[in-house]
Amino acid sequence: MATDELGRVRGFREGFRWEGLDRLPYKEEGAAPFRTISRQTLFADPNLDCELRYFEIEADGFSTLERHEHMHAVMILRGNGHCLVGREVREVGPYDLVTIPAWTWHQFRATRDEPLGFLCMVNAKRDKAQLPSEQELQSLQSDPRIAAFLNGLRER
Amino acid sequence: MATDELGRVRGFREGFRWEGLDRLPYKEEGAAPFRTISRQTLFADPNLDCELRYFEIEADGFSTLERHEHMHAVMILRGNGHCLVGREVREVGPYDLVTIPAWTWHQFRATRDEPLGFLCMVNAKRDKAQLPSEQELQSLQSDPRIAAFLNGLRER
Repeated sequence: MATDELGRVRGFREGFRWEGLDRLPYKEEGAAPFRTISRQTLFADPNLDCELRYFEIEADGFSTLERHEHMHAVMILRGNGHCLVGREVREVGPYDLVTIPAWTWHQFRATRDEPLGFLCMVNAKRDKAQLPSEQELQSLQSDPRIAAFLNGLRER
Repeated sequence: MATDELGRVRGFREGFRWEGLDRLPYKEEGAAPFRTISRQTLFADPNLDCELRYFEIEADGFSTLERHEHMHAVMILRGNGHCLVGREVREVGPYDLVTIPAWTWHQFRATRDEPLGFLCMVNAKRDKAQLPSEQELQSLQSDPRIAAFLNGLRER
């Protein structure tokens, strides 16, 4: 939808929703492994070279483990969780910034008690995500910290 | 600075600052009218077609009244205030979204009691801002609501 149709100020609503914006499925069901995420596209316009999206992972949910050529520029907005970026597992909380460089495996996981919501800026023109092969997954899991992260065992 | 030099997770610090990021002046002093704003560039990378910046206007401060070809995609992060977009004056608060279309006059103003902080996404390649001529300013001020906004008289 073009900006003019949307108006210029879009109010924030309880529960991290925005006036006139649909809460969309993260991905098509069955397209890739993930659990309980929604997506809202906050800004997308032919005159903007990037899009800004808001993703929310429900308590105990996770995003797809994937990689692609395009970068992600992420700011956490609510909740706490962990992210895998390359071979690094990090705890993240409100307003932390996460850079996902090109071709870097990444996944976000919410804690057990609350949703993890974050902004993600991406180029409007971008490639599709790749899933890990069995061999790549084994290589990641050979690191005990990464294996614990992927199995949902969080370090608190 | 390239992403690799910065690390992949940048922690949030008290007072809306981020690990390893400089709080920069909004603009060169004297280049244009404004009052008490700082700027932090959260994401800027050769592989990203946009930049994400955080601006903070101190209590009672304001950004420059200006327009340009490039769009702004804004999310308020802290505080409350008002913005002018075109000929529309709107109250804004946390997580509200503001779209500034091409060639649209705009200004942000903080309330008297607290800072107004917001994210602003822009194309990496963009034009410079224009200031209003005396005639354009008079045209804006011919609307009493806009005149009150520009004179710092807020509707509460």
